[in-house]
Amino acid sequence: MSILTNAARFATGAQVRLACRAGSLSDPTAGLAPGAAQANLVIVPQSAAFEFLLFCQRNPKPCPVLEVTEPGSASPVQFAPDADLRTDLPRYRVWRHGELTDEPTDIRDLWQPDFVAFLIGCSFTFEAALIAGGVPVRHIDLGCNVPMFRTNRPCRAAGRFSGPLVVSMRPMTPALAIQAVQVTARYPGVHGAPIHIGAPAELGIKDLARPDFGDAVLLRPGEVPVFWACGVTPQCALMEARLPLALTHAPGCMFVTDVKDESLAVG
Amino acid sequence: MSILTNAARFATGAQVRLACRAGSLSDPTAGLAPGAAQANLVIVPQSAAFEFLLFCQRNPKPCPVLEVTEPGSASPVQFAPDADLRTDLPRYRVWRHGELTDEPTDIRDLWQPDFVAFLIGCSFTFEAALIAGGVPVRHIDLGCNVPMFRTNRPCRAAGRFSGPLVVSMRPMTPALAIQAVQVTARYPGVHGAPIHIGAPAELGIKDLARPDFGDAVLLRPGEVPVFWACGVTPQCALMEARLPLALTHAPGCMFVTDVKDESLAVG
Repeated sequence: MSILTNAARFATGAQVRLACRAGSLSDPTAGLAPGAAQANLVIVPQSAAFEFLLFCQRNPKPCPVLEVTEPGSASPVQFAPDADLRTDLPRYRVWRHGELTDEPTDIRDLWQPDFVAFLIGCSFTFEAALIAGGVPVRHIDLGCNVPMFRTNRPCRAAGRFSGPLVVSMRPMTPALAIQAVQVTARYPGVHGAPIHIGAPAELGIKDLARPDFGDAVLLRPGEVPVFWACGVTPQCALMEARLPLALTHAPGCMFVTDVKDESLAVG
Repeated sequence: MSILTNAARFATGAQVRLACRAGSLSDPTAGLAPGAAQANLVIVPQSAAFEFLLFCQRNPKPCPVLEVTEPGSASPVQFAPDADLRTDLPRYRVWRHGELTDEPTDIRDLWQPDFVAFLIGCSFTFEAALIAGGVPVRHIDLGCNVPMFRTNRPCRAAGRFSGPLVVSMRPMTPALAIQAVQVTARYPGVHGAPIHIGAPAELGIKDLARPDFGDAVLLRPGEVPVFWACGVTPQCALMEARLPLALTHAPGCMFVTDVKDESLAVG
């Protein structure tokens, strides 16, 4: 086993999920199972499921819903029918009344019979498409996390769920930014086209060097910042809702599906 | 007033809605307020709203959700903020335990404080785009209703909501069918690209001359049938759910919004 690289050991979503289930993988999933779509996970009780699904419907760019499980079921029958969402992610976050209280690697003991799990599209899919489309992604080249910012744009609220639109930023030349719009527009299920190019102040972002989440990535001469709606948005809305108990993936520790990135493309 | 044509009297969504509200319009809305998106209406109690929204999320081609109102509110703040969904459609249908019981022109006396209204995309938008894109639409040229068929493809169920995918059919030459795919793919919010071209038997349709809903439209030599997911699908699922009380628009008597057809296009 020791001579196997991660790429060989984790070539498929099933391999990643089984390693998580066995307790041998608790690290971020970036780069694992290339070509397999990865997803954000949000779990809420059924009493909050309509409000959360409605929040996603009203804010489809930051919250593109890929699948919703049956109440009480941890099986995403469309995206990975053999998976168990209680064990198959590397690490989870436990939220009680909006506060982060734990980061376990297994949530079987926390699972409730009325829990509904939401899989939400992840930017890893469109980043793979950008790279395949000849658009370099700076934070990947630098080996760091993407910079993310709270904006001055409120999401459309739904019941207890509200909060700011959170965006991720990737610096590009104007020509590559145009290419990036075209590439990512084909992936509405994973945040789609950018929501802004150019002026951070328009979004209420004061300093690109000080992201609210992730790592700072600076612009080079001639580059513009390109902003996409980000999957941290629903996590912020979840904190705002202050539910007695809710669960999510831990940052970067995504759910790896059986569905190919390319199958999420349209047009 | 008598010399004014319908096109002049009903140039905008607001004009159509106010005429409905005043009781002076109770006819189908096809052709009114050209360029304004029209929508299917489904109203269910909040206790069924999660299941219905989930049914739509799981079946986005027949059930593209444009807007969901706040519980108890008849105001679609995104698509027509001044509208009242209880009065502003020409005619409604009342469903009790899955049975059609009435077709009133006003539902104020039926409205409940826990009602949630869903606006669902309507094929009128993509038909306007087809015509603008040089693709004639036969049933419009013939002045009849589009033919619709129940298929052998079940929708993905959600709670009490289930049923077959219902499709509409438009005959075209293969070259125009290809053009039609490209045009309608730009409108995922109003059923998007076709779901089938060619063989009705693949969909379990035995006789194109005998549609389940609407009028028969026959193929001419060299034409193929082109099938789109249809907004009658959620109405069939609603009947299947047998809720004590649910409300919809009456066939063809759509809700006319303030939003432009073109603003629903992507790409």
